[in-house]
Amino acid sequence: MTARAEGYATGRARRDQIVESATELFARVGYRHATILQIAQHVGISRTGLLHHFASKEALLEAVLARRDAEDMARFRPSADDGTGLAAMRAWVELSRYNASVPHLVSLYAVLSAEACDPRHPAHDYFAQRYARTVGGFERVLTKAVAAGLLVPGTDPAVEARALVALMDGLQIQWLLDPDPSLMGDVLAAKLQQLLVVPLLDPAVVGRAPG
Amino acid sequence: MTARAEGYATGRARRDQIVESATELFARVGYRHATILQIAQHVGISRTGLLHHFASKEALLEAVLARRDAEDMARFRPSADDGTGLAAMRAWVELSRYNASVPHLVSLYAVLSAEACDPRHPAHDYFAQRYARTVGGFERVLTKAVAAGLLVPGTDPAVEARALVALMDGLQIQWLLDPDPSLMGDVLAAKLQQLLVVPLLDPAVVGRAPG
Repeated sequence: MTARAEGYATGRARRDQIVESATELFARVGYRHATILQIAQHVGISRTGLLHHFASKEALLEAVLARRDAEDMARFRPSADDGTGLAAMRAWVELSRYNASVPHLVSLYAVLSAEACDPRHPAHDYFAQRYARTVGGFERVLTKAVAAGLLVPGTDPAVEARALVALMDGLQIQWLLDPDPSLMGDVLAAKLQQLLVVPLLDPAVVGRAPG
Repeated sequence: MTARAEGYATGRARRDQIVESATELFARVGYRHATILQIAQHVGISRTGLLHHFASKEALLEAVLARRDAEDMARFRPSADDGTGLAAMRAWVELSRYNASVPHLVSLYAVLSAEACDPRHPAHDYFAQRYARTVGGFERVLTKAVAAGLLVPGTDPAVEARALVALMDGLQIQWLLDPDPSLMGDVLAAKLQQLLVVPLLDPAVVGRAPG
């Protein structure tokens, strides 16, 4: 490795450490309450050292959110489109169960999304867009499932998309306050099953595009 | 009015003002970020003047939460028990619609409940108990509705209680990010209707205890 390449690798490792510490602190005390100095101390560097990598707390917040999004996307996107929506619905349950293993990230999103309801919060637009995108994505999945004849007749994808996203958010709060490892996944699976005319989690049922 | 009674009345009005300002500030920037000084300035008194009425920020937080609870209770409790759960289910929809008129309170609870997931937050126990009580209350209502034959066969009151409380919480976040006046009430009513074998909002259907 050249000296320059080594420098890049070190810089990257340091950036990762900083994002990790910021994630933990934002989750614990909120974005507004956390300070650059606290995050720097957590990493074991100076405030100036941190500002060399991230020019502001806002830039750090963007990096924290971007990383979580990239991780989620890598984890769940590829396998989730079978043309009928069923694979995606299973992936939502899988995501809920996975979330029970990363309480600090669940907490991060619960705190930040609530804080960000204030239009003056720097992540307000991020969360407004994230919700619009997520609800839209759920609606497309449910619309495919309607077309594939997998849902109870009369199911309204727009209403159910909002309701499912809300359910997942609300269950996170209940779970953070009273951790029961199966709460999020089990309740979500039960509610999805009520929408379906086929068994949600029976591996013998494989979603197929209609026609 | 005697001078002493006047003093009490003035003190009480001042306490109300302080609680009002604290509610607004906790909702906007979170409990952790708000300072006693900011709240005092908002009321137009000194920091010492405020501390004369509330000895600490924690005491103020308790007062804010106690007042909201008292108001909610007065508003919705009396009419809500008809023995079948139906009146209570209607009251939940009414509460959701009412919440659309008090965004600062909705925001307060969204931010505080997320912050309070941290066991070190002064309102942690309050929210843990509040959720246990709310979910328990919903479960009792749904159990009555099962006994009265109003719910779709196979409905599990414990699962549905958690799901409904989560739904209401999650809808609040979506609504705060993208205010649509009917969002919370309409989605909740649609989800409740799916559990019921009678029309939720038809005034001709009056809940009656079975037998």
